[in-house]
Amino acid sequence: MIAENDRVLLVDPRGKKYLMTVTNKIFHTNLGKLDISEIIGMSYGDKIKSHMGKNFSIIKPNIIDYIYMMRKMPQTINPDDACQVIANTGISSGDTVVEAGTGSGAMTLLLSYTVFPGKVYSYDINERFLKVAKENIDNYGKGNVEFKLKDIYEGIDEKDIDLVSLDLPEPHRVVGHAFEALRAGGFVFSFSPCIEQVIDFRREISKYDYSEVKTIETIIREYEVKERGTRPKTRMLGHTGFMTFARKI
Amino acid sequence: MIAENDRVLLVDPRGKKYLMTVTNKIFHTNLGKLDISEIIGMSYGDKIKSHMGKNFSIIKPNIIDYIYMMRKMPQTINPDDACQVIANTGISSGDTVVEAGTGSGAMTLLLSYTVFPGKVYSYDINERFLKVAKENIDNYGKGNVEFKLKDIYEGIDEKDIDLVSLDLPEPHRVVGHAFEALRAGGFVFSFSPCIEQVIDFRREISKYDYSEVKTIETIIREYEVKERGTRPKTRMLGHTGFMTFARKI
Amino acid sequence: MIAENDRVLLVDPRGKKYLMTVTNKIFHTNLGKLDISEIIGMSYGDKIKSHMGKNFSIIKPNIIDYIYMMRKMPQTINPDDACQVIANTGISSGDTVVEAGTGSGAMTLLLSYTVFPGKVYSYDINERFLKVAKENIDNYGKGNVEFKLKDIYEGIDEKDIDLVSLDLPEPHRVVGHAFEALRAGGFVFSFSPCIEQVIDFRREISKYDYSEVKTIETIIREYEVKERGTRPKTRMLGHTGFMTFARKI
Amino acid sequence: MIAENDRVLLVDPRGKKYLMTVTNKIFHTNLGKLDISEIIGMSYGDKIKSHMGKNFSIIKPNIIDYIYMMRKMPQTINPDDACQVIANTGISSGDTVVEAGTGSGAMTLLLSYTVFPGKVYSYDINERFLKVAKENIDNYGKGNVEFKLKDIYEGIDEKDIDLVSLDLPEPHRVVGHAFEALRAGGFVFSFSPCIEQVIDFRREISKYDYSEVKTIETIIREYEVKERGTRPKTRMLGHTGFMTFARKI
Repeated sequence: MIAENDRVLLVDPRGKKYLMTVTNKIFHTNLGKLDISEIIGMSYGDKIKSHMGKNFSIIKPNIIDYIYMMRKMPQTINPDDACQVIANTGISSGDTVVEAGTGSGAMTLLLSYTVFPGKVYSYDINERFLKVAKENIDNYGKGNVEFKLKDIYEGIDEKDIDLVSLDLPEPHRVVGHAFEALRAGGFVFSFSPCIEQVIDFRREISKYDYSEVKTIETIIREYEVKERGTRPKTRMLGHTGFMTFARKI
Repeated sequence: MIAENDRVLLVDPRGKKYLMTVTNKIFHTNLGKLDISEIIGMSYGDKIKSHMGKNFSIIKPNIIDYIYMMRKMPQTINPDDACQVIANTGISSGDTVVEAGTGSGAMTLLLSYTVFPGKVYSYDINERFLKVAKENIDNYGKGNVEFKLKDIYEGIDEKDIDLVSLDLPEPHRVVGHAFEALRAGGFVFSFSPCIEQVIDFRREISKYDYSEVKTIETIIREYEVKERGTRPKTRMLGHTGFMTFARKI
Repeated sequence: MIAENDRVLLVDPRGKKYLMTVTNKIFHTNLGKLDISEIIGMSYGDKIKSHMGKNFSIIKPNIIDYIYMMRKMPQTINPDDACQVIANTGISSGDTVVEAGTGSGAMTLLLSYTVFPGKVYSYDINERFLKVAKENIDNYGKGNVEFKLKDIYEGIDEKDIDLVSLDLPEPHRVVGHAFEALRAGGFVFSFSPCIEQVIDFRREISKYDYSEVKTIETIIREYEVKERGTRPKTRMLGHTGFMTFARKI
Repeated sequence: MIAENDRVLLVDPRGKKYLMTVTNKIFHTNLGKLDISEIIGMSYGDKIKSHMGKNFSIIKPNIIDYIYMMRKMPQTINPDDACQVIANTGISSGDTVVEAGTGSGAMTLLLSYTVFPGKVYSYDINERFLKVAKENIDNYGKGNVEFKLKDIYEGIDEKDIDLVSLDLPEPHRVVGHAFEALRAGGFVFSFSPCIEQVIDFRREISKYDYSEVKTIETIIREYEVKERGTRPKTRMLGHTGFMTFARKI
């Protein structure tokens, strides 16, 4: 049964989604007004009717819904790329992560869920970004993120870290600091849109005792499947960024 | 400090890795014998010397190490694809998952870690596969997996499920059962190497009230980064499988 | 020296291109009017000034300029795909080609240039398409194309053909006719946007004595190269069509 | 009717191909000996029987057969990439081309066929490569290639060229020479396996009055089509090279 202050996802008959907290309020959509307080006591899967008689489905939101609904900064790493960090570093429940380039906190949220109850330390030098991210994570996170208004190029405070995750203009400047901060077997990861940053990062990586060094790109190809018409979609996201992983041995 | 029965990953000077449980035994490698009992009381990051004087690094293994070391059946879904399930369905800690086509349990292990302390129900009709998977999960899992020697084409016992994950020859035969078993907002996911299965699955999906239906393929492009020589690798894994997602509204 | 009735490509200072025949006329652009008769007696590489004082470069057009300037029907095969026919069938000067699904004649033009002075027979059942293609080929072709308002599903008139090139909704219905029409060592080629057509075509191909059967897709990845910013372009053409080749032995 | 000294392609029952000139000789295969002189007077499409009773089909070879049978040097540009030069520069019959980095002559042969009766000037500084290429082109070409044992970094002798085609370690050193040699509307093209060469080349290109500058990569995806099993092939050629085109206006 849904209680006051629970978070719900409302889906209108056209598939448009609204993420909200259940309180005593009226919500306006272009398919009519909804009395949100009616949701209290209903169940996920039930429907609520607008004053124009349109049914909105009530479903339980998940972390990806949160990421897509979050207030966004430009150039946010998307979940399709972010999840490769799990596949390539094996971080999981209980791990400790240092992240730099907090941005709007999309990566932060995924890390927060993945390592919970482990901790995420998130560095950014941009106060405005950090404020937005903090708001996003306060709303949707697991209470295990500590934000730091600090320049990671100058050093990492934490030790014995399982993953250092970078989304920065000059990631090569963190390679040495990451080596100090990581536990044996921990990973440094960097996301960069351009190849020049990859080249600089890899050159710096080669100066330390990292192994399992790998640079990849995730290309997601989506298919259109219609009656007698199956084919890759005509328009495609051609590139998001290069992802480099290295493990401290 | 490492204790008896802890699991460690030993990395030899050439980068070759050995996953093992710390007990009182002698382990033979082609770089010499190791007395594994010496590891008791050491720390991750320390090194142990073979009788040929070679140093082996001792590191803490992670879930991906486990997956690559697991005893494998053919056609196992790899972590690069498996993690897209997280990115596209948002499953996380506390969720309940039904899986069919257990195979060797690689997907099972990732699901087990992701939803812990939530539960995974894993169906297979092949007793031999189920035995291997059980062994693998007993070794590396989180104790939250229930294996079922049962044909999922005949129905799903569980209700209010967050994700039904399929790796089967005829996934379209589970679309209706999944619709019954899923909670509102839950997902069905199917992995298929061939496009014919996708077409059948999507045709069946269209008969139910699923939304957010999407078929994708993950293409991982790896780069070679050498001094004055950066380029995509010449040899590439061209295809693993198609992944289809649909959400019950 | 450029003479009356020669064809020229004019390029304005912003890179916009105009293809035209040199005659006694005034041409209006949004960078001013051009007196085209002034071009007579000039050389390729010279510039002509508009009445607004803007310089337009005069260059010699090529076949690809023609294709991009041609009046187009929907779903025209593009040069990036069309050239794969040369790479996979080796057609060259002197060969004879049958084409069906003339469309707007883009493929026809490339075939015409490639086999000249060999001949191209182009079948279409759509009178309107054939008219447009004929106009295009009259303008830009090599005089070696014969258009036929005829349904190729009913048969191919020609014999001893080097290539049968198909861009049709049901290419599998031509597989047998093509086998009759081809010389030993000749190829049948089919372009299809959807995989269902490929599957039908390949099933039919397997009933005849074809070899070197191959289905490919050409993916063109374009790169952005800026100072300190090299990367694949964000937006990409995800799919054009599948191309199947088979050789009669 | 096939005459002495004609070139034929013999295809054995397993699909293995042999390219040869028809003369009075015995040819040994692992399916038995063939008396090649028997072919004189036969037609393409006929079969010749080995002394072990196996039938070999006689077909007319094409330029792609020649390229695959040519004696090869490492790192030869393949026809799938080479044909993109036609699609992107529109070279055709009658054009004049300068090529550097002759290698084994695969690109040379395609250029020779495409521009015939136009001419190809092919520069290389490696006498051994030039000898192999000359042999290959003497065997299979159209008599319109002039080889030059000359360092193109020092300059291009020809003027009013339609295309300068480069397959060199330092293509940026030819950008200025190409600009001098090209006619208005002509193209310079460079093929490079690594991105660093592309970056240098593009930087140099930007110093001259080139337009339509484009860097692409051709990715060929091959499909397996079996009864109820259609899918991209598991193994794939991940990368050949980057291709950059620029047009002199």
